[in-house]
Amino acid sequence: METSKRPGGRSARVRDAVRQATLAELAERGYQGLTVENVAERSGVHKTTVYRRWGGVEGLVSDALELAGDEPWPIPDTGSVEGDLRGVVQLVRSGFADPELGPVSTAFVAAAVQDAAAARALHGFFAARHEQSAVVVRRAVARGELPDVVDPSEVIRVAVAPVYYRLFVAHEPVTERDADRAADAALAAARAGVL
Amino acid sequence: METSKRPGGRSARVRDAVRQATLAELAERGYQGLTVENVAERSGVHKTTVYRRWGGVEGLVSDALELAGDEPWPIPDTGSVEGDLRGVVQLVRSGFADPELGPVSTAFVAAAVQDAAAARALHGFFAARHEQSAVVVRRAVARGELPDVVDPSEVIRVAVAPVYYRLFVAHEPVTERDADRAADAALAAARAGVL
Repeated sequence: METSKRPGGRSARVRDAVRQATLAELAERGYQGLTVENVAERSGVHKTTVYRRWGGVEGLVSDALELAGDEPWPIPDTGSVEGDLRGVVQLVRSGFADPELGPVSTAFVAAAVQDAAAARALHGFFAARHEQSAVVVRRAVARGELPDVVDPSEVIRVAVAPVYYRLFVAHEPVTERDADRAADAALAAARAGVL
Repeated sequence: METSKRPGGRSARVRDAVRQATLAELAERGYQGLTVENVAERSGVHKTTVYRRWGGVEGLVSDALELAGDEPWPIPDTGSVEGDLRGVVQLVRSGFADPELGPVSTAFVAAAVQDAAAARALHGFFAARHEQSAVVVRRAVARGELPDVVDPSEVIRVAVAPVYYRLFVAHEPVTERDADRAADAALAAARAGVL
């Protein structure tokens, strides 16, 4: 039955269909174009079910973001902290430049500046990403490349921040060189004992 | 007459009233709550005039942003690049924390992620701010505190980016210490010749 909580049961299939439809709608229309009606139609799940279980577009975005957070995030392992950190920042840059992934990621950022529930969900998403990415800093400390007083999550924040700043605040293009330079700047600060 | 372009004439007074009303509405209701009707009512300018001259909310935001860009931006002059750069980043942090200025600035960022015209206006605003703020880096180069190969605008971007990243992407609080650390990180990178 529809409200079953069995893993892999109808409830899980409904949830997956709705989350996939939400991501597809975000990719096509952005957050402003997201409606319960369109998600219902695309997923084949009845509109009243979507309203009952997700509440509205904010709930759809939060749930889809959870799915996005489960996506593999291929932490680079190049053997040097410089290569790893550049790799992390390039992942961010190329993700937003990707014709499929970019619009969805952009829609999440846009949703969060407009809606408190989406902001909380995005906060959780980034907390997890910082923690996952911090492994490149921890490996560097273990190899003796960085002082062990460094704050791994802060190195990640400072490394990726200029990419997001260009994209969503100053509305400037982001080149590969810009991304490398942001990673190198965070690394220089970490080496100097500032982070 | 209303369409007069005389400086200080009725046209200029109408424009000023509408821009002030737009800023006040943005402070109270944010970008999502901005309507031509409310701006017209608050400014005492007829709705049809607002539609004719500004087109809609996007035009109102772009024009108000131009007014905001003319506001004095008190570039710090503390005698050292460390103090100056920390001062610039603290200005950004305290601006968003300000109960009057904060909601307006936040509304501009939110408008720009939703609307291409607002994004272009914000791009221009930040290009001007980067250039204004870059004077602290140029002074540091002149004093021999930084290598003269440094890119002044890039030092500013890297210094302020973590504050914006916390506020509008990761949705994390920003402490005074976070702001100082962001400034110090940009400075360390500039000293290392990375920026």
